[in-house]
Amino acid sequence: VREQPIRIRLLGTAAGGGLPQWNCACANCDAARRGKIPPRTQSGIAISPGAEHWILINASPDLRAQIEAFPALHPRAASARNSPIRDVLLTNADLDHVLGLFLLRERAEKLRVHCTAAVRDTLRCALQIDAVLAGYCGIEWLELPGTMTPLIFNGMETGLAFRAIPLPGAAPRYATAAFSPSGHSVALEFADAQGGARLLVAPDVAEITPELRSAMEAAETVLFDGTFWSGDELRRVDPAARTASEMGHLPISGGSLEILRGLRARRRIYIHINNTNPILQPGSPGRAEVEKAGIVIGEDGMEFEL
Amino acid sequence: VREQPIRIRLLGTAAGGGLPQWNCACANCDAARRGKIPPRTQSGIAISPGAEHWILINASPDLRAQIEAFPALHPRAASARNSPIRDVLLTNADLDHVLGLFLLRERAEKLRVHCTAAVRDTLRCALQIDAVLAGYCGIEWLELPGTMTPLIFNGMETGLAFRAIPLPGAAPRYATAAFSPSGHSVALEFADAQGGARLLVAPDVAEITPELRSAMEAAETVLFDGTFWSGDELRRVDPAARTASEMGHLPISGGSLEILRGLRARRRIYIHINNTNPILQPGSPGRAEVEKAGIVIGEDGMEFEL
Repeated sequence: VREQPIRIRLLGTAAGGGLPQWNCACANCDAARRGKIPPRTQSGIAISPGAEHWILINASPDLRAQIEAFPALHPRAASARNSPIRDVLLTNADLDHVLGLFLLRERAEKLRVHCTAAVRDTLRCALQIDAVLAGYCGIEWLELPGTMTPLIFNGMETGLAFRAIPLPGAAPRYATAAFSPSGHSVALEFADAQGGARLLVAPDVAEITPELRSAMEAAETVLFDGTFWSGDELRRVDPAARTASEMGHLPISGGSLEILRGLRARRRIYIHINNTNPILQPGSPGRAEVEKAGIVIGEDGMEFEL
Repeated sequence: VREQPIRIRLLGTAAGGGLPQWNCACANCDAARRGKIPPRTQSGIAISPGAEHWILINASPDLRAQIEAFPALHPRAASARNSPIRDVLLTNADLDHVLGLFLLRERAEKLRVHCTAAVRDTLRCALQIDAVLAGYCGIEWLELPGTMTPLIFNGMETGLAFRAIPLPGAAPRYATAAFSPSGHSVALEFADAQGGARLLVAPDVAEITPELRSAMEAAETVLFDGTFWSGDELRRVDPAARTASEMGHLPISGGSLEILRGLRARRRIYIHINNTNPILQPGSPGRAEVEKAGIVIGEDGMEFEL
C-alpha cells in the first residue's frame, strides 16, 4: 500500500518559445524582460509516485534549467552520476516537448520513453532520435496504454496508474513524412492505486472529444491547454502565423473556458500558455474572466499533491 | 571605415552538460548547486562587429537563457518579432554546440550557418536539421573560408574578417555514418578590417598543429579549450568514460598550459571547461597554476573588445 502522496510539479508553463521568446518584443515578452510579470519556461510537468522517483511529462528544451530549479530532481550525493528521474511520457512530438530528450543523453541507463506509435515514428524518422541517442544512453520505447495501467519501475508497482486518451491533431511541422494519419496527440490520465483521485494532463487540445470530456468530468485536477486566448492571436505579432485551430489549440475564449467553468474538479489549471496570450497580463479582462471562473493560471514551480 | 570596436561576449563557458550537469553530484556540480562557485552554461560566444549586429559562435542548448542574460541580444521594440542575431558559425557538430540551432527556428528569415562541409553533412544526415528547420525558418549553409575573408551582412562588409583553421578530430558520437575522414573540427580566427588585432577561438583542440600554433602566436586574444585538467579526469566520476585525448581534448596539465604560458597574447582565456575540471575550485593547485601563468579562467558573461 502506497504511503506517500503523489506529488506534481509544473516545471514549465509556457508554450513553444517560452516567455520571453528570444526574438519577440510583444507586450508580454517585454513585461517579462522588465520583471513586471514572471518569466516562464517551456511546457513540462514532473510527477512522483513516492520513494523519490520522478517521471517527466514532456521534455522541453528548458529541461536543464527546470531540473536545477527543483532540488527534488537533483542527483543524490551517494554517487557522482545519478538521477531520481525515471521515465519520460510524451503527449506529442512537438519540438517544445521533445528537444529535452537530447539533454538527458548523459545518463548511464537507457532512457525509457512512453508515447504513441505515431509519436515514436516521428521522433525516429524525422529527428533520428534512436540513432542519435544510441551514441549515448539509448532509448527504450514503451507504448502508452489506452486503459488504466500501473506504472512500474524496476519490476515494482509505483502506486500510480496511467492511460493515454487519443486526441485529434496533425503531426508536427518538422515531420514532413508522417506515416500515420492519427496518434499524434494525446492527453494523459493518472490515478492513484486506489483508483481514487485522478489527474488529467492535456497541454495540446484541438477539440474536446467525448472521451476527453468524460475524463475532464472525472478528474480531481485538470491541467489544460491554455495556449491561446483567441483564434487569431498570433497573427497580431506575426501576420504569416496560422490560427489557433490550425495549430491544434482550442482557444480559451469561446472554447475551453466555458467547459472548464462547469467542471467539478477541485483544481482547474491552464498550462502551455503562449507568450502572446493576454491572460499573462495582470488586470487584463481575459485574466479577470479566467479567475472569476475559478480557473488557475499555472505558473512555473507550482506544486500540489493528488 | 569601422568606427565601433568589435565586441566579444562569452555566453557560456562550460563543456557539454554545463555546470551543474543535471545528473552529476561531483564536488564541482555540488558546489555550483550550493552557490559556492558560479554556475556555467554550455559553450558559446557572441561577437559584434558593430551596428548592433551579432553573430554567434556555436549554438548551445542553453542559448535561450544565454540570450535573455544579455540585453544586447534581445529584440528591439520596433516590431514584435526581430533579433540582432545574424549568422551562426560552428566549430564542430557536437550536440553541445548545435542543439541551440533548433531554438532559433521561430525566426522569419533563413538561419545562416557557416561551417565545414563535414559538419554540414553531419547535421544534415545525422540530425536531419535541414528537413526539420525547413518547417520553420530554413537554413542557408555557408562554407567556412580557409583564408581571411570579410564577413558580409546584407551585402555590406561588417569590418570583421574571419577564417577557419582545420583541426584533427573525429565526427561526434551521434554521427554513426560520417562521410568525411576530416573537417569535423576547426578553430576560428577573426581580425578587424585593418588586419590588426586578431582573436582566436578554439574550444575543441585535440592537438596543436603548426597552423594553429602560428595563429596562437599572432593573436591578441586566445580563447582556448579548457575542457579537462588531466587525461583521466572523467573516469573518476564515470569509470566507463573515455580519456581526454579519446574525446578530442588536449588536457591543460602537461598540454595547453605550457604553450599558452609562452604566448605574447594580451588575453589568454580558458573556455569550454568541463564540470569535472579541478580548476573550477578556488584554491585548488590547478587553478593556482593557471592563474600564475597569467591565464584567465573564462566565466559566463565575460565581455571584452578587440
